[in-house]
Parts: sequence; structure tokens; C-alpha cells
Amino acid sequence: MFDDLWTDARLVTMQGEGLGVIEPGALAVKDGVIAWLGPMSELPATEAKRRHHAGGRFLLPGFVDAHTHLVFAGDRIGEFERQLGGATRKELAAEGGGILATMKATRAASVDELVAIATPRLHRLMSEGVTTIEIKSGYGLDLDSELDMLRAARQLGRENGIRVVTSFLGAHVVPPEFAGRSRDYLTHLAEVVLPAALAEGLVDICDGGIEGLSIQPDEMMILYRAAQKAGLPIKGHTDQYGDVGGAGQLAALGAVSADHLEYSSEASIAAMAKSGTVAMMLPGSTLFLHEPRRPPIDLFRRHGVSMALATNCNPGSSPTLSPLLVLALGCSFFRMTPVEALRGYTVVAAHAAGLAGKVGELRVGLPADFVLWEIGQPAELCYWLGGAPPREIIIRGTGRER
Amino acid sequence: MFDDLWTDARLVTMQGEGLGVIEPGALAVKDGVIAWLGPMSELPATEAKRRHHAGGRFLLPGFVDAHTHLVFAGDRIGEFERQLGGATRKELAAEGGGILATMKATRAASVDELVAIATPRLHRLMSEGVTTIEIKSGYGLDLDSELDMLRAARQLGRENGIRVVTSFLGAHVVPPEFAGRSRDYLTHLAEVVLPAALAEGLVDICDGGIEGLSIQPDEMMILYRAAQKAGLPIKGHTDQYGDVGGAGQLAALGAVSADHLEYSSEASIAAMAKSGTVAMMLPGSTLFLHEPRRPPIDLFRRHGVSMALATNCNPGSSPTLSPLLVLALGCSFFRMTPVEALRGYTVVAAHAAGLAGKVGELRVGLPADFVLWEIGQPAELCYWLGGAPPREIIIRGTGRER
Repeated sequence: MFDDLWTDARLVTMQGEGLGVIEPGALAVKDGVIAWLGPMSELPATEAKRRHHAGGRFLLPGFVDAHTHLVFAGDRIGEFERQLGGATRKELAAEGGGILATMKATRAASVDELVAIATPRLHRLMSEGVTTIEIKSGYGLDLDSELDMLRAARQLGRENGIRVVTSFLGAHVVPPEFAGRSRDYLTHLAEVVLPAALAEGLVDICDGGIEGLSIQPDEMMILYRAAQKAGLPIKGHTDQYGDVGGAGQLAALGAVSADHLEYSSEASIAAMAKSGTVAMMLPGSTLFLHEPRRPPIDLFRRHGVSMALATNCNPGSSPTLSPLLVLALGCSFFRMTPVEALRGYTVVAAHAAGLAGKVGELRVGLPADFVLWEIGQPAELCYWLGGAPPREIIIRGTGRER
Repeated sequence: MFDDLWTDARLVTMQGEGLGVIEPGALAVKDGVIAWLGPMSELPATEAKRRHHAGGRFLLPGFVDAHTHLVFAGDRIGEFERQLGGATRKELAAEGGGILATMKATRAASVDELVAIATPRLHRLMSEGVTTIEIKSGYGLDLDSELDMLRAARQLGRENGIRVVTSFLGAHVVPPEFAGRSRDYLTHLAEVVLPAALAEGLVDICDGGIEGLSIQPDEMMILYRAAQKAGLPIKGHTDQYGDVGGAGQLAALGAVSADHLEYSSEASIAAMAKSGTVAMMLPGSTLFLHEPRRPPIDLFRRHGVSMALATNCNPGSSPTLSPLLVLALGCSFFRMTPVEALRGYTVVAAHAAGLAGKVGELRVGLPADFVLWEIGQPAELCYWLGGAPPREIIIRGTGRER
């Protein structure tokens, strides 16, 4: 006996190279897990407690938003307005703006406050089909506040019935307490902060910023090595403003993803192909920061590097909570194909979140996380700049209020 | 006795040069018209049938979307996917794609069908705060179908209680029936189609495409002259792919707006400043078409040309129904300031729609078209890439279901 059976759906399974569409298809759920799926013609005689007629609608895996900074306090809207009025980033930093403003506000907030602030953000993402989300630390930049951010991320997952993957991003800027002592800061992260976070079970992935701005690529290795010793998957922000060889460095570490990559070299990309490192595309920040360069999509394609997509939701460079917009920007702005974008926000994103083969597909044995869309074809999800929300969202077999 | 009184609001009146904020303010409505507004401290003793506590929320004029091709049949999603897969526009046109595909589908649809297809699009726009909309013809390209598009636009207005302004856009491409005879087509429009549309009261503005592609700038004058003789305001699409002097030509005609303008010259812009012609910014199409060039915002600013913003909703170059995204793209993509963007989608857009001083502001005597937003400051409406919909939408004093 199945719990739920969805009939007459167009299943976008993400199996194989493309979208793996089965139509007309059916999908059965038992104990929150996909128990059967296939063509209607092969539907077994098993009964179901509840039957749902999908009416020919498209049924896709829930989106996996594998790069977000969802937990933060304060806002940067005044700064945004000042910048468009002509103020430089340097001027804003001198006035106490920029990332340190977010750090200050985040440090001042309790875990419960962080959760309360981030909850409506999470709901916005979920209302457009996100069923798994990665959330980073990185605005605390000291022991207590980094742990509080990760605790908030875990609590958001528990309270909202959504799978949350946490990334430890202590190392992307150097906090004021360690000004001029970036190596000491990395050692502190590796020897004090990360172990404390691990002891509390707060970290799933170790992230970092390899940009040669405040933390040097070789300094990042202090933390990455500690993380790998602890068995954590690695990822990093890199090559966003210039080629620092970061994508190659991440490939050499066997990272699950290298993120941004506007300036990555072909040698780095070839290395990523070898290591199976995913190229995480974040068009929201390229647009918001008015950066002149797009990532080398053609090179990723030519070398067989899989591309993922994410909101990169954060207050300073990518204030977006719209998965559909991210799909549209992936295509219209970055020139990914709709198939690349849709795979990039599901099955490939799962890899980038350290969950390869565990979410982001329709497959027997995987959690029943899927979304019904009112569309004529899958590419329509990428076509509209700001599309319409889905008809129904199911997490672990259970329908969600939108 | 007022019908409705809104108290404790932050009123964004759009009076003066900036946003004209009054806080805390109150606004009273009588017979669908703004009967009083001002600071709470000056609130008259007049009673109201209904009182609404705005709780300090921002109350803005409804958006005026003054450039849309909302009425069309068929879709261009397959074409979008083929293009991202590497097909050229020429190949797609040879396969029957492009604007002629939309023309064919639109010609095949009845007025009621066109209305039925466009209604959910209109609802999407209204749900994000649009209270006045301009809708163009231009996919019919023959007498009956052009008139049907305009009839559909009028019907959309009547059925949805929203003010619709119609633009006659018969002249932007030459239909197959007049292939190679663009001058004859323009004469036909001026002598047959426009008079028929006017006789039925279907046209508020005369639009056109001045791009030197299929219709030459001097040919457009055949229609524009006929339109001006009939007392219609003029506007046009121009200088999108190269400088054809179109913005200057429109300024010389005293046009209400010149639209697109990526390549307009400084001389044209100086002429627009003199004639009071609004520069209509359409970032959706620049993004979707992956065009390399942005319009010369700085020149508009320097010469004192007012900038408007619109969705430009259409299936081939700007598939967007999100006013909030348009505000965000106006700022993050085109580098307008939030004040310019917000004025550009209200008071300046009213000018571009031929409704200067009639909508797009909070002022006594104007229709009570306004929207309550859950934001910390007006710039927040431009900050999020894909923001949250408003809390309440009032058209002619009456609350709308969202």
C-alpha cells in the first residue's frame, strides 16, 4: 500500500544526460520516500491511501539552492542607494558599511533573532520550489557568532521541515580582531572555531574565499587541510574578480564545487573536469554588482564541467529570494540552456551541496521532494523573467502551504 | 464625510523633485478620488465611513506600466530554447519563428480568446502594484487583427477595473502582404487602419518602430502625420540597435516618449530635453536579448530628460510580468537611482502614457490608485531582485484581491 500516488504527470526525473522526461507518468510515495515511478502504462496494481490526479502537469524534483547566505541581520539598502547615487565602495566602507556592517548586526543578534529574521526569507525560497537549501556562516567571524549562525541554520531546518546543509565560511574576510594577521586568523579557525562547530555537529561542508584580497590562497589551505582531516567536503568562492587559480586549487582538493569563476583559466577548468568539481553559477551577484564579465560557460561545456545555479542570497551582492529568477538569469544573462539550468538547480546542485544521488532527482528510494508546475514545457521555468510560483510543493511526501 | 480614511501611513506622493514623502501622513478617499492628504497633525475633523490604520507602512501611487505588448497569442518558448542551444535568429525566422509566429497566432485568435489569454498576465502585473497599463497593438498587422487587439485591450480594462491606455503600433514591421512595399503599408495604415480604429474609439496614442530595418524613418512620418492630424499623442521604439536619429525625430514631433534608446546620440537627447519627451527604459529586453549596450542614463540625467521604466512585456524580447523586477533591473542593471526608478514607474510613466498629471501621483483630485508596501524604505522596492508583493492594492478607492 502506497501512502500517495500521483497519476497523469509529466515526470522530469533528471535521469540520464537530459531531463529524463516520462509522460504520462506516475509517482508513488511511501513513508516520505519515492516508492515507485514510471510510465502510467506500467503502473502496478498496488493501492494508495491518497490518489492525486496531476492533470498532465509537469512534476519536477524540488530545487536545491546550494549557495546561500540566508542568515544575516541588518540590511544594506541604504548602502545600495548611496552607491547608485555615486558613492564608491571605499567611501561606504569608511562609513562603516559593507560586510562589516552585516557582521556587526549579525554578531548583535541572538540565535532566535537570526532564525526569526531568516524565516520569511526561507519561506520565499520554498514558495518557489526550493526543498533543500545550503546555508553558510561567515557574518559572525568570531567563535560565538559563527556557531550561532550555524545553530540558526540548523534550527531553520528543524522548524520548517526542509533539509538544510550548513557550510562553515569563517574564512572569506579577516575580522577586525585579526586585522593584518590573516595567517593567525586561519590558524584560529582551524584550531578553535571549526573543531567547536564540529563538536556540536554544526558543519556539513567547509567553504572559503580564495580571492587574494585579504586571505591568500595558501593561507586558506590551513583551514581546508583541517577540514579534510575531519572528513568534510570542500568548496570555495573564487576567481570572481580576477584569476587567482582558485578553481584549480579547489579541483586539486577534490572540492564538490568552485563558485563564481568569472575569471577562471582553461587550465583550472580542465582540472575541475578531472576532479568532478561542479561550477557554481551565481548570476544574481554578477548582475547586482554590475560586473563586466560572465563566467566562461562555453569552456565549462567544452570540458564537460557540470554547472549548478543558486540564488547566492545575501545582503551585499545578491539580494534575491527568487529561484525562478535565478533560472531565468542563468539562461538570459549567462546563456545556459534551459536543460543546463534546470539540471543545475536540481541534480547538479545536489552534488555541490554534498548530496549527490541523495536529492535533486526523481528516483526510487530518494526523498519525495517534488513540485508541480503549471507550465507548457520545462523551458518555460527559465523563460519568464520573474515567473509564476508553482501549483503544489511536496516535501518528504507532504504538501506544503505556499 | 469621506468614504475611506487611511491613517498613520508614510505617503510617497511623488510631488516635487524627489519622492515627496509625508510621514506620518493620512489620505482620504471620496467617490474613488483622493479627497485629502497631508500630515497626520493636519488631519481635518471630517468623519469617514471606513478607517484603515496603515501602521506606518509606505503608501505609494500605483505603478503605471506605460510600455507593454500584453495582448498576444502563441508563445516563443521553443524558440528561446533553440536560441540558447545555438540557433541564430535568421535560422529561427526561416523556420517560421520570430514575430511572424506571434502575428500568425494572434491573427488566428478571436477578441474573446485574446482577452482570455491576456487576463492572467494582467493579474500578475496588478498583483505587484500596477494600477494603470498601456497596451499596444502590433501583432495583427492587418485591419481586422489590429482592431481586434485594441478591442481586447479595451475589454481587459473594462473587465478588470483598471485604466488601460491603448497604443496603435501597426507600424514596426511590414506584414507579408506588403513585403517589399513598406511605403504602401504605411499609407494603408494612415488611410485605412488608423481611421477605422479611431472611429471605434480604440486608440489613445500612436506608436511606431523607427529602426531603419524594414520601415524607414521617413516612411513612419506618413503615419505619425496622420495621427497628429487626428490629435493623437506620438511615441516610438527607436535607437535600440544603432543610432538612427529616432529619438531626435520623436522629440521634433513633441512625442510623449521615445523608447529603448540604447544608441541615441547626445544631440537627440538634448532635443528630447527641449520637447519634454520622456526616455522610456526597458531593461527586460536588454537583458533578455543579451544586448551589449545600456541606454545613456548619464546623458539623460545631465540633459534633464526624465526617465520612465516599464516591463515591455512581450513574448519575443521581454517575457516579464514583474514590476518589482523591472524596478530592480532599472537600478542594478541600468544604474538608475531608486528615486529615478520609482518616479519612472509612476509620475514619469504617466507622462509617457499620455496621462501627465492624471495618474501616478498622490494628489487631491486624482484617482485613488495606491499600494501599501511592507518595506523599511522606498529604495527596498528596487533592491531585491524579485521582491515580495504588496500588502494591499487600491484602485479608485477600492481594495483588490491579490
